[in-house]
Amino acid sequence: MFSQTVEYALRAMVVLANAPDSPQTAQSISDIAKLPPDYLFKVMQPLVKAGLVVAQRGKRGGFMLGRNSGEVTIFDVVNAVDPIHRIHTCPLKLRTHGIRLCPLHRKLDSALAMVEDALKSSTLAEVIESGDPVRSLCESVVKLHAKVH
Amino acid sequence: MFSQTVEYALRAMVVLANAPDSPQTAQSISDIAKLPPDYLFKVMQPLVKAGLVVAQRGKRGGFMLGRNSGEVTIFDVVNAVDPIHRIHTCPLKLRTHGIRLCPLHRKLDSALAMVEDALKSSTLAEVIESGDPVRSLCESVVKLHAKVH
Repeated sequence: MFSQTVEYALRAMVVLANAPDSPQTAQSISDIAKLPPDYLFKVMQPLVKAGLVVAQRGKRGGFMLGRNSGEVTIFDVVNAVDPIHRIHTCPLKLRTHGIRLCPLHRKLDSALAMVEDALKSSTLAEVIESGDPVRSLCESVVKLHAKVH
Repeated sequence: MFSQTVEYALRAMVVLANAPDSPQTAQSISDIAKLPPDYLFKVMQPLVKAGLVVAQRGKRGGFMLGRNSGEVTIFDVVNAVDPIHRIHTCPLKLRTHGIRLCPLHRKLDSALAMVEDALKSSTLAEVIESGDPVRSLCESVVKLHAKVH
């Protein structure tokens, strides 16, 4: 239901959110997010276009978040790369339905609305600063308790 | 987010649910559901395979629901043609994540779970017998109130 493009875009955005002060190269994003290099520009282009990412040129250039990570929701990212198409009018174009959806399409649209709301309720900052020991994109630190004899 | 195949499959199922006692021909489903004929068999095949539809051969043959419309949820139909892929394990295959999802993937999976629950909560019978004046797949009856002089 979430496309591969959405998955990759969110991973790339988490990489950038984790490095707010240092531009990340395409290579770096690709490595950390396990994102195929060929796919990277396809993913970054709509994020830049939406203003969620800025591309800095030059020797120390790279990609950075265009806004504070606390101001970018998961929905913003999804919407930039593969928008959720709500059902606003009858998909069959029935003349008498118009914007009055039938029970089938109302049900589908309400499911889409729930997804939108859920994705709008989390920012990138919340995702990376959750305090959860399982951190996004990173191997967890496995604590080894050495036995003391 | 819902594919065209899902949309077409649901429309076809509503056609069959509206005619529980008479097999519907491919032509009839295609006409009522405004479904491209070339697409019809692609849509019907997985529905038959899932047991949601039965295909009857012969002169009076056609497609019928495989179960009572009150026993088929919208989720059953979606799942037969274009399943919702829940996130059960770390998509990055991080060794230390495994089935313990990070906050990002937990958020995405919980949105998918909500969609599943929403679609499981409605049957085809509910969709076609809702009492709503805007009926699925049909033009609404426009009541004309003639002025009585």
